[in-house]
Amino acid sequence: MGTEIQEIAGKARMAKRNLRSAGSAAKDQVLELVAESLVKEQDELLTANAKDLAAGKKKGLSAAMLDRLKLNPERISDMAEGVREVIRLPDPVGEITRMSTRPNGLQVGRMRIPLGVILIIYEARPNVTIEAASLCLKSGNAVILRGGAEAIRSNLALGKILSASLKKVGLDPHCVQVLATTEHKAVDELLKLDEYIDLVIPRGGEELIRKVVELSRIPVLKHYKGVCHIFVDRAADLEKAKAICLNAKVQRPAVCNAMETLLVDEPIARKFLPEMSALYKKAGVELRGCKRMLAVVPGAQPATEADWYAEYLDLILAVRVVDGLEPAIAHIQKYGSDHTEAIITEDYSRAMEFVRRVDSSSVMVNASTRFSDGFQYGLGAEIGISTSRIHAYGPMGLEELTISKFVVLGRGQVREK
Amino acid sequence: MGTEIQEIAGKARMAKRNLRSAGSAAKDQVLELVAESLVKEQDELLTANAKDLAAGKKKGLSAAMLDRLKLNPERISDMAEGVREVIRLPDPVGEITRMSTRPNGLQVGRMRIPLGVILIIYEARPNVTIEAASLCLKSGNAVILRGGAEAIRSNLALGKILSASLKKVGLDPHCVQVLATTEHKAVDELLKLDEYIDLVIPRGGEELIRKVVELSRIPVLKHYKGVCHIFVDRAADLEKAKAICLNAKVQRPAVCNAMETLLVDEPIARKFLPEMSALYKKAGVELRGCKRMLAVVPGAQPATEADWYAEYLDLILAVRVVDGLEPAIAHIQKYGSDHTEAIITEDYSRAMEFVRRVDSSSVMVNASTRFSDGFQYGLGAEIGISTSRIHAYGPMGLEELTISKFVVLGRGQVREK
Repeated sequence: MGTEIQEIAGKARMAKRNLRSAGSAAKDQVLELVAESLVKEQDELLTANAKDLAAGKKKGLSAAMLDRLKLNPERISDMAEGVREVIRLPDPVGEITRMSTRPNGLQVGRMRIPLGVILIIYEARPNVTIEAASLCLKSGNAVILRGGAEAIRSNLALGKILSASLKKVGLDPHCVQVLATTEHKAVDELLKLDEYIDLVIPRGGEELIRKVVELSRIPVLKHYKGVCHIFVDRAADLEKAKAICLNAKVQRPAVCNAMETLLVDEPIARKFLPEMSALYKKAGVELRGCKRMLAVVPGAQPATEADWYAEYLDLILAVRVVDGLEPAIAHIQKYGSDHTEAIITEDYSRAMEFVRRVDSSSVMVNASTRFSDGFQYGLGAEIGISTSRIHAYGPMGLEELTISKFVVLGRGQVREK
Repeated sequence: MGTEIQEIAGKARMAKRNLRSAGSAAKDQVLELVAESLVKEQDELLTANAKDLAAGKKKGLSAAMLDRLKLNPERISDMAEGVREVIRLPDPVGEITRMSTRPNGLQVGRMRIPLGVILIIYEARPNVTIEAASLCLKSGNAVILRGGAEAIRSNLALGKILSASLKKVGLDPHCVQVLATTEHKAVDELLKLDEYIDLVIPRGGEELIRKVVELSRIPVLKHYKGVCHIFVDRAADLEKAKAICLNAKVQRPAVCNAMETLLVDEPIARKFLPEMSALYKKAGVELRGCKRMLAVVPGAQPATEADWYAEYLDLILAVRVVDGLEPAIAHIQKYGSDHTEAIITEDYSRAMEFVRRVDSSSVMVNASTRFSDGFQYGLGAEIGISTSRIHAYGPMGLEELTISKFVVLGRGQVREK
């Protein structure tokens, strides 16, 4: 297995050079072919997907899992549209920034280049295969894709389309490689190859990600979970607060930027919490509160210590009454996950203080945590979210799949000392 | 040992928050006190250093190693001046960039914040202790310093000055911690603590760095070696080429940005190489050439395959005649270390092609590779050089010790879908 895996990584490394010398036009041409082929060759895709679905049913996958796995003509056409959106993004590679002239006349600046080879490890949804591959190709990176075992036939069929499209444009088909094996050992081997692979992005459950971090010799960009907080300050506009707190919890509870803990400033708790609780009740949200919350909203569940750490991803919310900004920040620092936190307030100083002091990857004033997303931020795409404070922090777009090299333009300068 | 080490990392993590809420003025005040104390308390420093030197002699350290270890009043005053230079740099923390307004009226931008806790592992020179600590403090990071065993007494004495200065300004003295133990196990333990430490920077020999990468669960910024190339193109101004090639090899051969391999374009080899070789001979440089080089410069050593990979760090140079730009780039891609490469040419298209295609961390036209350095690039400082294509690539200054979080300013927006 070792040699085989090393061969895959070695091919990716060669392919990255081939992709590097291709211009934007060639990369976009590949993506256009991918978008076309997805629709044209959908019968083959659907056949492969049907086999995955049948195997999944036999294995006893949940209905939700089977739904995530399922492809149909509509979903395939959405995938193709997603690829076309990536085509329309500007190519980040080659941009020169911060060119300035040193006292000795040297011009020193930075030029954006691809990272090189990216390994993406993800779970059952086959659309991630196309999404990740298009973003990596657009940014000039070779990519090795390792999806979930449940989707292996669908992913290999998608991989075939990707390689064929590369080939048609005269590029190395190994720019995108879908791992054919579902053995765990294959990933373990890949994670040791730091001389071939520049970055690993695991997307999935906390357990998967922790395992990747533990085994990897290659830098990993990841977020374990999103325990997002909203702090409703005493100077909040309560109408705004109610709309935002409702939206952040119920609009799509199963995603990482949904609110999991609501912190309410003591002076407004008596007014705000009963009104908010009524809205949550109507929306089917179960509340788990601290003692002071329970005093104001009788009948809610008492929260345990574990609730403050919890990422429910469900219609459940932990609620705590705090005495102002300082304890709110202290709570976030202790229990937070560095994902997204918001303050709701009309007070300028406290808004600015919250923004300055809370160092989560997204910090908001008077907005729903649900906006924490590459598309919403105008990055044009999102390959994932990082809560590691290295390379990228927060939603990662195309630019985060690149790095800058230094470019130095001289006219014969030598160094004196 | 485990608990003790975890305690150190835990203290650093608490200290980073304390440092985060301190403003620029407090950080600069600490650094000013450090600069003053270095000179005022130099007797204590020199005593500690003398013990290190005595132990080193007993242990049979080389004269060069002992020299690197040695402190004297002049070197101490240089260290203090270095700290004052860091004070004069702008504080990178808090800078807001790229603030733009989304169609829904949300303002989305990025704010620069410290990475958090940095672990620096280095070898015998005690001045690295002060240099690294000042850059980490200035950028708002807590730092754990682990120097070489040979310098342990000097480093602990420097650590005392750093902690005392923090304390005097009312900051947590654990913002800088010099590891008191020289056991290797301590580092192994630290490298597992990815929940406490955000970045590891190893500075030293390739073996040390490889060990750190292998053991670390924390992202590592490093460069293994600097095998820097200069390609003298057929359209080079030979006077510039001679000056640059001499400078890049002999001005300071023991550093990572010195040239190790010279690539000469075939059409000019017959004219350029004899003249260049004469200059090298005068400077005491030993040449190891390919067959075509030996044909033009009789008497030089033949190069073996190992010479193309070699980082001599000495007055030795590998020389190869190549047939134009393509084979030059291919040679660099095969044998290079992603550190620094230069082309010498007056041809516009080939200069631009070299800059575009060679993705080393520094790419130069008509300049000595010796300029590849944070100070020379105007970064104001240098904490190290990275050839990892993640977070930072090339010389790292203060800014590379920071990351940006997203800041989102709203007026009550909620997400529709």
